[in-house]
Amino acid sequence: MQFKVHAQDGSTAARTGRLSLSSGEVETPVFMPVGTRATVKGLTSEDLRECGTRMVLANAYHLALRPGPELVAEVGGLHSFMGWDGPTLTDSGGYQVFSLSELNDVSDEGVEFRSPIDGALMHLGPEEAIRIQELLGPDIAMVLDECPPYPCSRDEARSAVERTLKWAEECQAHHERNGQALFGIVQGGVYEDLRALCAERLSELNFDGYAIGGVSVGEPDDERQRMTAFTAPLLPPDKPRYLMGVGFPVDLLHAIEQGVDMFDCVAPTRMGRNATAFTRKGRIRIRNSCFKRDTRSLEETCDCASCRLYSRAYLNHLFRNDEMLGPVLLTIHNLTFYHGLMSEARNAIKEGRFESFRQQFVSVYSGRKEDPQ
Amino acid sequence: MQFKVHAQDGSTAARTGRLSLSSGEVETPVFMPVGTRATVKGLTSEDLRECGTRMVLANAYHLALRPGPELVAEVGGLHSFMGWDGPTLTDSGGYQVFSLSELNDVSDEGVEFRSPIDGALMHLGPEEAIRIQELLGPDIAMVLDECPPYPCSRDEARSAVERTLKWAEECQAHHERNGQALFGIVQGGVYEDLRALCAERLSELNFDGYAIGGVSVGEPDDERQRMTAFTAPLLPPDKPRYLMGVGFPVDLLHAIEQGVDMFDCVAPTRMGRNATAFTRKGRIRIRNSCFKRDTRSLEETCDCASCRLYSRAYLNHLFRNDEMLGPVLLTIHNLTFYHGLMSEARNAIKEGRFESFRQQFVSVYSGRKEDPQ
Repeated sequence: MQFKVHAQDGSTAARTGRLSLSSGEVETPVFMPVGTRATVKGLTSEDLRECGTRMVLANAYHLALRPGPELVAEVGGLHSFMGWDGPTLTDSGGYQVFSLSELNDVSDEGVEFRSPIDGALMHLGPEEAIRIQELLGPDIAMVLDECPPYPCSRDEARSAVERTLKWAEECQAHHERNGQALFGIVQGGVYEDLRALCAERLSELNFDGYAIGGVSVGEPDDERQRMTAFTAPLLPPDKPRYLMGVGFPVDLLHAIEQGVDMFDCVAPTRMGRNATAFTRKGRIRIRNSCFKRDTRSLEETCDCASCRLYSRAYLNHLFRNDEMLGPVLLTIHNLTFYHGLMSEARNAIKEGRFESFRQQFVSVYSGRKEDPQ
Repeated sequence: MQFKVHAQDGSTAARTGRLSLSSGEVETPVFMPVGTRATVKGLTSEDLRECGTRMVLANAYHLALRPGPELVAEVGGLHSFMGWDGPTLTDSGGYQVFSLSELNDVSDEGVEFRSPIDGALMHLGPEEAIRIQELLGPDIAMVLDECPPYPCSRDEARSAVERTLKWAEECQAHHERNGQALFGIVQGGVYEDLRALCAERLSELNFDGYAIGGVSVGEPDDERQRMTAFTAPLLPPDKPRYLMGVGFPVDLLHAIEQGVDMFDCVAPTRMGRNATAFTRKGRIRIRNSCFKRDTRSLEETCDCASCRLYSRAYLNHLFRNDEMLGPVLLTIHNLTFYHGLMSEARNAIKEGRFESFRQQFVSVYSGRKEDPQ
């Protein structure tokens, strides 16, 4: 893996770059849609390309449970399996084990948990997390980390940092797959000294890239922004920085301003399936009766399949009848919106006007007030 | 509307033709996917085009209940509403009223039934059926008919024929919309003399086209084939013949051989959503564990998005995880299969070899034995 910073914004830490991965190149900042079970729900890989997707995230945890990493490897690996020949990243499964499973026991060796499919007792440790991701074969694998919830005490956060560092070393020691990059993950909760310690120790291990983890776990926006702003500059400037699980448009622009290069979040896809569309003026709940007779597309300036072909009135009709095409179309629109935002951010950085771009976007966009007319 | 027969098969009644409708031209024999609520579930109109769809059916009954024909008219009519600029046909709602609703009362004036949405008492008579379809605005509207179930007694069938003829006249009298064709529907159950009577009387009314109705209501295959073979030659040869609600591939080829030009059926879409794929060798149930590691596409010779991009192993994975993309992909594949079959049938007719084409297809295709390897 190679990463080159191409342009640096004059007045902020925002930057553009290029990730060269085994499966292709990706311009940064980049947003990765979440394809949990090796599928971005409802979209073909051709749909994804048309939305502007260049890199997809899949969840090692879900794929390890079903169909199993051995099967994925046997049929040709993640790319071939999911019909996506572009770059991919898998998370290690740590976040899901901590957030979705009935936890049985966390120790320095890993996590014991019960499979939600058949209740079988399972173990996920650093060696297993690497084994799974080497079998799956994404371009980028992530270390196993301990991701505590929010809020968490200083002691809990310290313990999670220590374990995360231990596991990071072990993951690195076990990682052998050629052409697959491995990223470290910074934990530390809302505690700056712990974040600093974790970032420093991880940097010494010389990973291919660095993620800011332990965010998007229920903390207030300002805490997340504070931790992002604090942590990003502590990470090696010549390596890609990845803010995990974030976020909404305003969060993304804030993080880009701090020098973050990579993002993933379920917001555009999950909210799209739940009838929420992103527009320049804010979010729209398309089930709302004010859209029943609205012949406009979701966004006049958008060229996605939904906006090319369909009115808000039709989308309203689809969702009111639980028609599958509704979730498909709003997913397409929302991903197009997210990728378009990244593309504009890259252009603004290249032209040295990122801060004014961000301010203008935020002044028009209303993240909280829904259904602007 | 214009209809021209282009080629007539030498040894059978099979024929090709061209329907010239307000929204475009359609080569026949044609298969129309069912877009019940003005959406072929999960597919955009661009997906449909790519599958080979040239004409779509929507259900007046469902659209009358929600969002209502007035709303559809207000936002620009069915084509604009559903983002499909090609030809469309709506059924009159009769079939749905008889098969889906709690029937309250059928009289010569029409049917009283309860709305499944809010329980309101509703009335559908010939005038209302035409009013709804004129508001919706498809290229082809259908008369209201009385469609009895199978089996039904001779008396019931006779009564349904009489009412169907009365309503056909009334529909024709009320129909005013320019550029919209109106088709009559032949009823008569399994009784040849009733079918003949109905066909003869309808022919005198000079409709734009003629449908064979009252099939696909639970009758055995051979009864349906017998009625189709009996009825089709009684219909005016210079008008399109439409076999409603039929069917599976072998049924389609049999009906084409009898001179039928148009078809609609939920089989490719509904069965696709339920994990059944059509192939040249027969049907495949993709959830079957024999496909878990099968790296082949559904059909080697198929060029649909599913076959271009994905293996049977991946489709198996999608369905086992209830992933929305599974139903989308199998719908795409099945429609591509159906439209491809129609296209090959047209070519075979033009080349005067329809019967050998049909026999060869049937000899390879196993409609009953599922999961051929």
